Amino acid sequence: MTSTNGILAAAILAGVITAGSSAYAAESAKPKGPTMAEVLAASKPGDWRTLAPENTLYLELPTGRVVIELAPDFAPQHVANVKALAREHYYDGLAIIRAQDNYVVQWGDPNAEKPDLARKIQQAQKTLPPEFQRPLDAKLPFTRLPDGDVYAPEVGFSAGFPVARDKRTGKMWLVHTYGMVGAGRDNAPDSGGGTELYVVIGQAPRHLDRNVTLLGRVVQGMELLSALPRGTGPMGFYDKPEQRIPIKAVRIAADIPEAERSALEIMRTDTSTFLALIESRRNRREEWYQVPANRIEISNLPIPVRLKSGQRAGD
Amino acid sequence: MTSTNGILAAAILAGVITAGSSAYAAESAKPKGPTMAEVLAASKPGDWRTLAPENTLYLELPTGRVVIELAPDFAPQHVANVKALAREHYYDGLAIIRAQDNYVVQWGDPNAEKPDLARKIQQAQKTLPPEFQRPLDAKLPFTRLPDGDVYAPEVGFSAGFPVARDKRTGKMWLVHTYGMVGAGRDNAPDSGGGTELYVVIGQAPRHLDRNVTLLGRVVQGMELLSALPRGTGPMGFYDKPEQRIPIKAVRIAADIPEAERSALEIMRTDTSTFLALIESRRNRREEWYQVPANRIEISNLPIPVRLKSGQRAGD
Repeated sequence: MTSTNGILAAAILAGVITAGSSAYAAESAKPKGPTMAEVLAASKPGDWRTLAPENTLYLELPTGRVVIELAPDFAPQHVANVKALAREHYYDGLAIIRAQDNYVVQWGDPNAEKPDLARKIQQAQKTLPPEFQRPLDAKLPFTRLPDGDVYAPEVGFSAGFPVARDKRTGKMWLVHTYGMVGAGRDNAPDSGGGTELYVVIGQAPRHLDRNVTLLGRVVQGMELLSALPRGTGPMGFYDKPEQRIPIKAVRIAADIPEAERSALEIMRTDTSTFLALIESRRNRREEWYQVPANRIEISNLPIPVRLKSGQRAGD
Repeated sequence: MTSTNGILAAAILAGVITAGSSAYAAESAKPKGPTMAEVLAASKPGDWRTLAPENTLYLELPTGRVVIELAPDFAPQHVANVKALAREHYYDGLAIIRAQDNYVVQWGDPNAEKPDLARKIQQAQKTLPPEFQRPLDAKLPFTRLPDGDVYAPEVGFSAGFPVARDKRTGKMWLVHTYGMVGAGRDNAPDSGGGTELYVVIGQAPRHLDRNVTLLGRVVQGMELLSALPRGTGPMGFYDKPEQRIPIKAVRIAADIPEAERSALEIMRTDTSTFLALIESRRNRREEWYQVPANRIEISNLPIPVRLKSGQRAGD
């Protein structure tokens, strides 16, 4: 919020009440513990993982690459089908057709509803049964967030993905937070399959949870989607063909030479370092903050990503 | 999520379980009641209000106008100062200097830290005591949301603004949701005053609540800010002067001829119609939905805005 270094100020004021002229300054003592910057600086190589090339999707746009990690534990059929579609080059030459403010960007076949012009599917499936939720499996990793959730009995992270669980129904599911990727569908629950994919670009639309199949998450390149001009048609669809953004290609990382892959590492979500990161976000220790929230919402915890060299690639 | 009419489908299926081939379809009966479109269609003139010209700010950009409603009940000194700054043309010719993805856009004086080049303030104040929260006043309108909140004891709407209250501390405060406008500050709590203003363009950064003075909300024109190219400097600041977006003017609606004002109406938040709107968003009745959330978060409830003629201006 400052033109100098407010939010990212790295000064440590653990346990010290900030001096300030306001009666509102520091309702409680500044919480002890490291800042996010300090958690990152102290992290060890084992706190990070690389993306599995077989489950990493590259959306290649004229402006650059969007890197998507796929979630086969939660949407195995959709992940397999999106990979099949990519491998038969179904998406190449299609377009981003929708950008709805504070909601989603979506890509697919602009001619999907014109049978003579629509892109033909070769081996992949056009539609699939829904994978809106899955049986709760206690063997899947789950780092629970401590502060609850408005929409689900419990939320946390499983292998880098935001997840809700409900022991009563025995189900777990991916949740709609910033950057999550899902398979658009029509009204029938089994009318999606991955030919149209959307990405959340705004406030987490949690009412979509368990209503549509999520299958992955953007780990790099969100700004190539979130800053697109909003469509002026209903639901943010682009009115005119020339407003659409062409897709150069969608590729699986495993299918291209290693030298052309994005060399990223993502922070593991099953470590004590990640617990420290959560705590550093629940209670900000940076000098700028006056009142620690002592709370964190699942939509408000970005998972750090960096270049393999150790250079920062985003947060 | 569909290329046809999924989310906005107006079909009424009150009480009817949607046909579907999936085992996941309709865990419970489709809830009874109107959709949001039906609530809007059934609304009466008294369910809407106009913006008070004296508390409406126009940010005039080369691409159009951003309309901001000011919140004097929550930040009286900051609102008065921002109006004083606007009236002495302090902002005219300054620029948007920052766009950080999933966080904020910010404008101010690019030369603020160069004493010889910095824009001079005439009558207004450069800094003010913080207005991070205010005494809880039960006489201020408050429509409470029924599903709780991760960050505050209770949340709801007061005269169009998202508000949290804490009876224990006897305080209430504006909360950081999409489109909220605040006064940037440096580390000292009293170092802000309105010369730099920011707007939330992503996931609600609720950890900022009670740490910075919020003073208004964008009611029209968010897409002129949210789709700006992200800055590539630290914290999303634009690296190069030519990346900044010039501000043509910031004006108070009351100061310009009525014919040049934006003729908007905004839905009141203290009516039974607004309660029906909340319910229509807690439990979506549109045909597309399979599982109603039965929950709503304050960050996920847009307040409808329309042109005075009755034509839709945004949602």
